[in-house]
Amino acid sequence: MQIEIAKNCGFCFGVRRAVKIAQKASGASTIGELIHNNLEIKRLQTECNVKTLKSIDELTNEKTAIIRTHGITKNDLGKLSQKDIKIIDATCPFVTKPQKIAADMSAAGYEIVYFGDKEHPEAKSVASYATNRVHIVLSTDELENIKLSNKIALISQTTKKIEKYSALVVYLMKRAKEVRVFNTICNATLENQEAAEELARRADIMIVIGGKNSSNTKQLFLISKSLCKDSYHIENADELQKQWFINKKLCGITAGASTPEWIIENIAKTIKNFS
Amino acid sequence: MQIEIAKNCGFCFGVRRAVKIAQKASGASTIGELIHNNLEIKRLQTECNVKTLKSIDELTNEKTAIIRTHGITKNDLGKLSQKDIKIIDATCPFVTKPQKIAADMSAAGYEIVYFGDKEHPEAKSVASYATNRVHIVLSTDELENIKLSNKIALISQTTKKIEKYSALVVYLMKRAKEVRVFNTICNATLENQEAAEELARRADIMIVIGGKNSSNTKQLFLISKSLCKDSYHIENADELQKQWFINKKLCGITAGASTPEWIIENIAKTIKNFS
Repeated sequence: MQIEIAKNCGFCFGVRRAVKIAQKASGASTIGELIHNNLEIKRLQTECNVKTLKSIDELTNEKTAIIRTHGITKNDLGKLSQKDIKIIDATCPFVTKPQKIAADMSAAGYEIVYFGDKEHPEAKSVASYATNRVHIVLSTDELENIKLSNKIALISQTTKKIEKYSALVVYLMKRAKEVRVFNTICNATLENQEAAEELARRADIMIVIGGKNSSNTKQLFLISKSLCKDSYHIENADELQKQWFINKKLCGITAGASTPEWIIENIAKTIKNFS
Repeated sequence: MQIEIAKNCGFCFGVRRAVKIAQKASGASTIGELIHNNLEIKRLQTECNVKTLKSIDELTNEKTAIIRTHGITKNDLGKLSQKDIKIIDATCPFVTKPQKIAADMSAAGYEIVYFGDKEHPEAKSVASYATNRVHIVLSTDELENIKLSNKIALISQTTKKIEKYSALVVYLMKRAKEVRVFNTICNATLENQEAAEELARRADIMIVIGGKNSSNTKQLFLISKSLCKDSYHIENADELQKQWFINKKLCGITAGASTPEWIIENIAKTIKNFS
């Protein structure tokens, strides 16, 4: 069996940057999970002495706090700033930008529609910068019974698929006189999605690696599954099952933006040993 | 045979306003056709002494010039203002608005994409207010080989279909970081289209009345034709053919925004006499 890793996959710019920052900050704690990958977070704790806290309320005697790649809410940043603690901001610059757009568009009188998951930390952090009304939605249904203003600004979670974002835009064009669309989906996400799509079309089996809580990995899995029915979303090599690979000619591998190279390599090696 | 006139059709607010203005301006000349309906233009000349000029170059001794519903270019307005002539502006307010948007968005550094017909007077008048680059297009193909800026403002001709406009928006979202979409399609157009659609679904034959040069009438014809294969676009009663109506149970009638009531009534009466 041939194994092929997608042309674009794994660590994106923002994650690579955040991990580099954390590796140099021994003794620091991150506010929330730095990135959506449990194995890498464990490695940072074991090898680099960087702890993960659930929220700022868990801070005790830390001298340094690291802000996660997905950002934190404006309110939490305010609370954190009042503490006697050094703050290292590892928010991905592609998340800082929509935070600023949310603030600017609110100030300019726009009602914000944010395309994303209500429970995702990135959505929470970006939406918190809106001072006007903000709606975090995944589908048009959620806006159906809401009276909207005539001036709407649209922002997307960085890891969403542009086709679904477009559907929201088309819907809102009929409901508002002006729809100001910001394409905040990051290039890395698009490139990973395109590469996964290209590979899944050819592969007999697709292994999608990444945190089960990772939004962009879930998107990669959906794309793979739609083109290659034998697609599996796993976090680590232990989850692989030998029988998945029987009679397969081409095994494609892709990985979310929070998946470090060492995990991808480890999994590729395990699969190779099966055949 | 039953005859049913669409719930919404014929004169829109802007056309009604322009015709009222012209009727009170005996001796005046309009710059270009006031509205896209030859019969009504002839009536204005015969009954109200309002002449139609092809351009401002044809002005001779007129004391009053009327600006057509579709507007004129900024350049022409400048030239006209320098003449010793009274100017009556019959530009539809729904066209004045996109003119202002084109000017404002250019000033704010946006590149303009205008969804409309290059040769249509409305497109020419609105585009002339853009001081930045402006592209007048009907399809995404026309933008394929053009390097675009990262900030695009989108404006539509007032008489276009929103579904086609949406396709342009979706395409541009992938090519620019910010797409600022102005829904400048007027409500009358939408309402006429919806009413035509509803009627065409039920009718055995559809008669679409309006100028052959009228953009919104052409849209109504396309909608009707897609739902009722026996659809005919006519300007006046002379074009009706008795055999069209043989074995038909329901004849639907719709009319473009420039079609006066007297023409609709005249045609409905002629059809009634057939059966």
